Amino acid sequence: MLSADRKKNRVTLLDVARRANVSRATASLVIRKSPLVGAETRQRVEEAIQALGYVYNMGAARMRAERSRTVGVVVPNLTNPFFGELLSGIEALIDSAGMVVIVANSGDLVERQDLVMRRMREHGVDGVILCPAADTEPAFLDRIAEWELPLVQTLRHISEEIDYAGADYAAGMRQAVDYLASLDHETIAFAVHGPMHSAYHERIEGFRDAMRSLGLNANMILRVPDQLAQIADATHLLFEQTEQPTAVICFNDVIALGLSGGLYDRGLQVGRNFSLIGFDDVTDAEALRPRLTSVSTAPVAIGETAAQLLLDRLADPARPPRRVVQETQLRVRQSCGPATV
Amino acid sequence: MLSADRKKNRVTLLDVARRANVSRATASLVIRKSPLVGAETRQRVEEAIQALGYVYNMGAARMRAERSRTVGVVVPNLTNPFFGELLSGIEALIDSAGMVVIVANSGDLVERQDLVMRRMREHGVDGVILCPAADTEPAFLDRIAEWELPLVQTLRHISEEIDYAGADYAAGMRQAVDYLASLDHETIAFAVHGPMHSAYHERIEGFRDAMRSLGLNANMILRVPDQLAQIADATHLLFEQTEQPTAVICFNDVIALGLSGGLYDRGLQVGRNFSLIGFDDVTDAEALRPRLTSVSTAPVAIGETAAQLLLDRLADPARPPRRVVQETQLRVRQSCGPATV
Repeated sequence: MLSADRKKNRVTLLDVARRANVSRATASLVIRKSPLVGAETRQRVEEAIQALGYVYNMGAARMRAERSRTVGVVVPNLTNPFFGELLSGIEALIDSAGMVVIVANSGDLVERQDLVMRRMREHGVDGVILCPAADTEPAFLDRIAEWELPLVQTLRHISEEIDYAGADYAAGMRQAVDYLASLDHETIAFAVHGPMHSAYHERIEGFRDAMRSLGLNANMILRVPDQLAQIADATHLLFEQTEQPTAVICFNDVIALGLSGGLYDRGLQVGRNFSLIGFDDVTDAEALRPRLTSVSTAPVAIGETAAQLLLDRLADPARPPRRVVQETQLRVRQSCGPATV
Repeated sequence: MLSADRKKNRVTLLDVARRANVSRATASLVIRKSPLVGAETRQRVEEAIQALGYVYNMGAARMRAERSRTVGVVVPNLTNPFFGELLSGIEALIDSAGMVVIVANSGDLVERQDLVMRRMREHGVDGVILCPAADTEPAFLDRIAEWELPLVQTLRHISEEIDYAGADYAAGMRQAVDYLASLDHETIAFAVHGPMHSAYHERIEGFRDAMRSLGLNANMILRVPDQLAQIADATHLLFEQTEQPTAVICFNDVIALGLSGGLYDRGLQVGRNFSLIGFDDVTDAEALRPRLTSVSTAPVAIGETAAQLLLDRLADPARPPRRVVQETQLRVRQSCGPATV
């Protein structure tokens, strides 16, 4: 039904943009009569609109909103509490807009993400907030753009032409490194897991840059298992390095929880004999003992921002894409102490 | 579209059952020509079918399955890791059936659950696995039965006529009490939170019965805050009782995590000066230090069972309702020790 309607009107803004050899965002700006587009570009886009017979339906997204009033959210993992907190932020805003959130799990697999996104479309959701699976190709997001399904990227970004809500992960890493350096730590490990994606690279590069700028070894990057239950047993990796680290920064709080247990098992006191910093600041960070010092990426606030971007997009499908990157904040608790060598 | 189709054929199996003054399950059995139904009842149901002009479409649910191949899951809370684990069990089975899971959060509120269920129906899901919000009325589930939307209850049950997958919470409580009694604990508190529903009552009654049958005080039931971040600060409740408890059994692992922190803050060593038992055995139980002794309700397995019940229901909409109640298992780790008075 939906797809039949859409097939009739197959020419999309993306087709126009391609023909005019501009970005979709630029084509949007032309349609919105933005003064930001130069005369030559404007003319090229207008010619493409003519040539393809593109009809821009300003009210289409709003009509869709009236039809289903449902927002889809696709995340890679529902067992990490981080995503639960992100969802609660999304739901708070979407609820107050009188809409309903439905969630699907991509399992961080592109094939499954593909299936889930097609289902979301078939179910007629008004728009989707997507944390793209690792290895998502830009072509995948282009296809969604062809569906004219309003989309917001969150936590990870693939395309510059699509709204994005995230946090400044690189700056967060710098806060963690600077804090440990202020406690005289010089040999600092970084524990990572999971697949590689923009947030992964931003965190690793943030760690490396911050360490290098202090003249410290930026290469002590350890991979630990993905499953929480197996992380404690990987703690030995910290003690098999050529230089002995006195602190570890974790890619997320799940790793911090796991290593915290592993350090305890070795008779070490976190915050005294070994320093540990988490990342994300999920609720568990405050509940652990010793309380976990963590870089807050404010998942609830990111969720709210992503939802707001989607609501704005539904209200105005042609607005230029926006990137909202929140500042992170170091929450100092009990899991770090002065370096003791 | 969907709803228009359904309106044409308004007479449902529930209408038939009501007119014949039998349960929906019995009416089902008649249609399936089950030998379990007596001649007189059978005749009454067949007369009702005639009188109402009811047409049973054996393939309807299967057709629905072919149409959307999507299963809805409605849970009260996505931040408790328990629900993440339940979902991973559901997804494993639904995935392998080539279907997709979409999840919605009722927030444990009946109004919101009502909205979410209507959306699920409008989106044409093939069936729903529902953990009913506290205070859900049986009339609500009757209405879903009228929609002929296949439904499975999980974790909490409202209606005897609808499939249910859960665990034997009362027996789990007995395992916890018996274990503490074997360590010579006599004054044992029970820490609860959240709204009241079948699983809540089963756990409380299980605790009370087990304590009473050992001749112990069954009334030390303490309410702690719902939010993890506030539970540690409620630990003082344990020390303001007329008799001083030496152990606490927690309604779930979230409470155990919170109280574990609160006991640490008071300088107590969990497993030495004070004993603590969780309930559910989420992954965090193994990650905590000291490792948390917890009654496993095996959320992943409950999820798998709920999914299997729904797949069976989709394959055979008229089969009699089933209840699958798993045994619980006490996972002894480090958080309990002998009573020291």
